[in-house]
Amino acid sequence: MTYCVGIRLNAGLVFLSDSRTNAGVDAISTFRKMIVYEKPGDRFMVLMSAGNLSISQSVREILQVEKLPNGDDEPITIWNAKSMFDATRVLGAAVRRVYEQDGPSLKAAGIDFNCSMIFGGQIGDEAMRLFLVYSAGNFIEATRETCFFQIGESKYGKPILDRVLTPHTPLDEAAKCALVSMDSTLKSNLSVGLPLDLLVYEAGRLKSDHIAVLDEHNPYFQMIHTTWGQRLREVFESIDDPQWDGAEADHPLLAPSERFEPMRKITSPDEKII
Amino acid sequence: MTYCVGIRLNAGLVFLSDSRTNAGVDAISTFRKMIVYEKPGDRFMVLMSAGNLSISQSVREILQVEKLPNGDDEPITIWNAKSMFDATRVLGAAVRRVYEQDGPSLKAAGIDFNCSMIFGGQIGDEAMRLFLVYSAGNFIEATRETCFFQIGESKYGKPILDRVLTPHTPLDEAAKCALVSMDSTLKSNLSVGLPLDLLVYEAGRLKSDHIAVLDEHNPYFQMIHTTWGQRLREVFESIDDPQWDGAEADHPLLAPSERFEPMRKITSPDEKII
Repeated sequence: MTYCVGIRLNAGLVFLSDSRTNAGVDAISTFRKMIVYEKPGDRFMVLMSAGNLSISQSVREILQVEKLPNGDDEPITIWNAKSMFDATRVLGAAVRRVYEQDGPSLKAAGIDFNCSMIFGGQIGDEAMRLFLVYSAGNFIEATRETCFFQIGESKYGKPILDRVLTPHTPLDEAAKCALVSMDSTLKSNLSVGLPLDLLVYEAGRLKSDHIAVLDEHNPYFQMIHTTWGQRLREVFESIDDPQWDGAEADHPLLAPSERFEPMRKITSPDEKII
Repeated sequence: MTYCVGIRLNAGLVFLSDSRTNAGVDAISTFRKMIVYEKPGDRFMVLMSAGNLSISQSVREILQVEKLPNGDDEPITIWNAKSMFDATRVLGAAVRRVYEQDGPSLKAAGIDFNCSMIFGGQIGDEAMRLFLVYSAGNFIEATRETCFFQIGESKYGKPILDRVLTPHTPLDEAAKCALVSMDSTLKSNLSVGLPLDLLVYEAGRLKSDHIAVLDEHNPYFQMIHTTWGQRLREVFESIDDPQWDGAEADHPLLAPSERFEPMRKITSPDEKII
């Protein structure tokens, strides 16, 4: 599997990806899932991919040459598109081209055409935009209400993103949040692995700002890993355990519920369930 | 969906279940998923179920009358089984009976025979045991190394269980951990909902110890919900943001990796991907 997260903030964009690919647990490899397309001063785009590796590698390759018809004008490519929307349409077309090439054979082999991608960036004067592209080449865009997308093993790391991120979150805090989210995912799921690719893009720069590759020796990620786990335990221990005796507790566990009775208890073989 | 967690500790057993059932997001109902089988002084067993509700309700009903052949002796039921292993075999047989009855019709309708159950408890002098029962009626047992099982929407709430639980965890701390795990799941997934059923069983008692139903007005769960979210944010904010400038940081983010280069950057349409 894979875990990637892309975040669109007022201050910029954050991208984080792992690099584990597996075909069964006995076939684990390292493949980087983030790629940057950059013409400094003109456009800056980041692509992260999850799903079938043969599909996403083919999409990357084809994306470099994919062209959308544009009436009598020059066809649209990711390098001349005037908006991130158009650039994402080119990516969708690349996905569809791979589907045309490989879809029938994959289907015959009983393999789903499975790929999902996060694509975001900025072109010229347009605002930064962030898209989630599906296997059918269709896509959705992040908004103020939903400012991040995840692909791959997304569930383990979603609660911390839900709790922390808003469009106003500062860039480096969002990067830290993404790394904590990744750390939880790494801890609970073997199909996600190091190294990580982290990219933090500041609004309006139109070139890469901050790029890092984090392996197991990276001091910052080691610190996140150790500190987060340890403080989480401290916080956990600082919260009162439930008290079963008496209503004198500050937060009685046994407060009666108006609507619900305790769970059903069966005490003999003859008792009816309902 | 559903989220249930069962934990086997040296000190006892903890069971926690939500009560949301949905057939699509526009068909949401409340069904309790925990049921207790108890003959005080003789046996104490708890069943929690996830998956297709028609299947799990049928399994519950049939479990009351299911009998395993036992040579010339009296057939084995959950009420006379001499071990939790045998009681779980009876549960597996009940699952298989529902499969015989409903499986072909479900298959014809394109519906998977989907159910999973956590079943645990104690019979007589035997140690407490905890099982995870699959749709095929087969099952696995919790051990010292893996002391909890989850069914349903398990991923959101797994990291905190992974970080906290060991066989030595005290009972009430484990109950708190299960509630924090549930809180994260409720926050990130609409298909899990209140009220919660919580049961904490102390080793050797052979009857229910502590039973609670927690709805949205429950003071302890409200406290967990508010405090955990808030302290998590405090801990998060207390951890240093990554620093991109200079190697003087205590935990430099930009420490070089020996094995890995930064992610691939493409700067023109003519550049090859590989």
